[in-house]
Amino acid sequence: MAEHPQTSLDEHSERAADEVVLATSRLEAFSDGVFAIAITLLVLDLVIGPGARGHLLRAMADLWPSYLAYATSFFMIGLVWMGHHVMVSISTGVDRRLMKINLALLFAVAFLPFPTRLLGEFITSSAAERVAAVFYGFWMLLISVILTAMWRYISNGHRLLPDDFRQARIDHIARYFQPNIGLYGFAIALAFILPRVAAALFLIIAVVGFIRVA
Amino acid sequence: MAEHPQTSLDEHSERAADEVVLATSRLEAFSDGVFAIAITLLVLDLVIGPGARGHLLRAMADLWPSYLAYATSFFMIGLVWMGHHVMVSISTGVDRRLMKINLALLFAVAFLPFPTRLLGEFITSSAAERVAAVFYGFWMLLISVILTAMWRYISNGHRLLPDDFRQARIDHIARYFQPNIGLYGFAIALAFILPRVAAALFLIIAVVGFIRVA
Amino acid sequence: MAEHPQTSLDEHSERAADEVVLATSRLEAFSDGVFAIAITLLVLDLVIGPGARGHLLRAMADLWPSYLAYATSFFMIGLVWMGHHVMVSISTGVDRRLMKINLALLFAVAFLPFPTRLLGEFITSSAAERVAAVFYGFWMLLISVILTAMWRYISNGHRLLPDDFRQARIDHIARYFQPNIGLYGFAIALAFILPRVAAALFLIIAVVGFIRVA
Amino acid sequence: MAEHPQTSLDEHSERAADEVVLATSRLEAFSDGVFAIAITLLVLDLVIGPGARGHLLRAMADLWPSYLAYATSFFMIGLVWMGHHVMVSISTGVDRRLMKINLALLFAVAFLPFPTRLLGEFITSSAAERVAAVFYGFWMLLISVILTAMWRYISNGHRLLPDDFRQARIDHIARYFQPNIGLYGFAIALAFILPRVAAALFLIIAVVGFIRVA
Repeated sequence: MAEHPQTSLDEHSERAADEVVLATSRLEAFSDGVFAIAITLLVLDLVIGPGARGHLLRAMADLWPSYLAYATSFFMIGLVWMGHHVMVSISTGVDRRLMKINLALLFAVAFLPFPTRLLGEFITSSAAERVAAVFYGFWMLLISVILTAMWRYISNGHRLLPDDFRQARIDHIARYFQPNIGLYGFAIALAFILPRVAAALFLIIAVVGFIRVA
Repeated sequence: MAEHPQTSLDEHSERAADEVVLATSRLEAFSDGVFAIAITLLVLDLVIGPGARGHLLRAMADLWPSYLAYATSFFMIGLVWMGHHVMVSISTGVDRRLMKINLALLFAVAFLPFPTRLLGEFITSSAAERVAAVFYGFWMLLISVILTAMWRYISNGHRLLPDDFRQARIDHIARYFQPNIGLYGFAIALAFILPRVAAALFLIIAVVGFIRVA
Repeated sequence: MAEHPQTSLDEHSERAADEVVLATSRLEAFSDGVFAIAITLLVLDLVIGPGARGHLLRAMADLWPSYLAYATSFFMIGLVWMGHHVMVSISTGVDRRLMKINLALLFAVAFLPFPTRLLGEFITSSAAERVAAVFYGFWMLLISVILTAMWRYISNGHRLLPDDFRQARIDHIARYFQPNIGLYGFAIALAFILPRVAAALFLIIAVVGFIRVA
Repeated sequence: MAEHPQTSLDEHSERAADEVVLATSRLEAFSDGVFAIAITLLVLDLVIGPGARGHLLRAMADLWPSYLAYATSFFMIGLVWMGHHVMVSISTGVDRRLMKINLALLFAVAFLPFPTRLLGEFITSSAAERVAAVFYGFWMLLISVILTAMWRYISNGHRLLPDDFRQARIDHIARYFQPNIGLYGFAIALAFILPRVAAALFLIIAVVGFIRVA
């Protein structure tokens, strides 16, 4: 098997003939690509048309909902990226189910620019602000749930962890991702009543979450 | 030759002076880049204009064809990415013809956002739905054909495989890519009669195909 | 710990249980991704509509403010990318605070296409040119400040540098990033009085800065 | 110096204190990122609005200039990517001047979607087709010139090549890039007289160029 040392595929296939498993490094490379692109595409929704010629400063100020949504999603993706790296770098390998959880995470992150755009566009509209804020909050929650599920899958019974990995550290890492979920629930409920306050809370959650993981 | 160990180029050029061959790692990096960008760009076609202010929830619901097209292409690219990785990581090297097949695959994937956009835009229009669905189905088929061709090229007579790679595994991997082609043919035919049912079938094909490879 | 040699995470966590640190290589990969995408997205703002059919050459010439803004941001991101690489490649590792400084840098770079767009759109409008030029200059300054802060953090007391790294080299590298800040201050002040001259100066600063680092 | 083996920076700085040189691997990663993004962004210019509802098939056919421009630029970037890889992987290192030539190449490639868009938009307009075709041809020529200059810089006097690299191979690689320049000159001249024929020739040049390098 020395002919192609850069892949761990054959090794695995010796264990189970139909188990096709991806090298960790390429899982990271592809996921990093999606995260980096999603985080950079967000800026495309910050647009001020030529009509603002006579009052550019006010037009820039009026764009505050888009800045808010931009910053929230930026920190959210930053958080996911770092959490993802921590998990994958600790794990001993990647099996088929982890691949699927990972694609679900990529799906949720790659889709995030859509709720971000809606939040930035409609949070100042009394008719649409509730829908936009609840949808955004729900999507943040979804991302958090997938992150938590990912760590549970990796750590459960040391499934993809080295044998000597201490339980205390497993719980410690789990705590970084878990508590947010309850907070999101509260923020989503708040979005029904006070959508703009909820939007501000989303940003705080993302920033605090990022700082805790970083 | 120890001066530049990161490339396998000179080694090859010793065999055939005019054979310029790419390092596997960089083929993977570039291909991963294209896959990651194509999969993340899809979200740019999910747009709801400020005019939806008064009925955002309905506007979001009305966007279902775009979600459908988005999800189908997302899983399709995910599938290609994983299949691509499996093939390249198994192969012992990359020769000039494989480079060309690979670029054909990148072409087909990088172009996919276009039929995706058409499907999302026109599947609800009685006049245009047939054209959009047939075109999308044809493009899925094309991608599948290239993936199959790629594996055939690699595996034929163990051209780019280690000598001890068992025929059973070659056939096993081939089966992951091959049967879809017949199914696509059926789906494309269906697209002429019932375009929306065909669009739903496209999604199922992509999801099932992804799950099988993952 | 030999099971997963590609990460330096466990090593660090032995030193401090709650210190989650990223592998340098993945910090580079993610940052490079953001830089590469931001630098390539800039071209999306160079648009000439079908209305220019009758006078394309003039329409292309009229786009000069966008070319100017494009080139300035292109060299600016090129400069950041090279400076970033120099710093990270010299440093012995990445700690949590550096991660945060790095995300601040990514934030500033990923956001740059927005002031770039404003500069290209409004530098020819007598009412809006001041705002656009001052904003752009401020954003360039911000990026420079973060770059300087990053090097200070790495080099201060050899925090993240090898022990034998000479002070002369630290000062030498610092000089590449530092003096620009004063110059930016001048350029921003100029933007209040002569916005178009300031815009030309921005380009010169970016090009000279790039050449000095490169 | 064993503390940070992933960089060749210190080694070089021992030779010349103020010479800041980039690791080859990161030059490749960043360049690949730009190439992959530029090649994938091209699809964003293939747009058919909802107005085409009643005649989608014709609208798709009418988009042929955009397909032509898309394909030409796709192969052009594919060619640059492969040529770039060949050169960088052969070279023993990257010095400051090569960094600058490389950024010039990235600039030319990242900007390519703009002339591509113009070609696709205006090649069917009798008033604008000349300008669009000449501009596109000029940009292709520019890219080719930079590629040739890059190889000349690397190979001249074995500047960045191993000592035992044979002259015959240097000339052989040079021939892959060089002759195109004359051809481009002809194609650009043709663009003044028969813009659409020139556009077709551009595609042929790109495809043949790609096949020769691949």
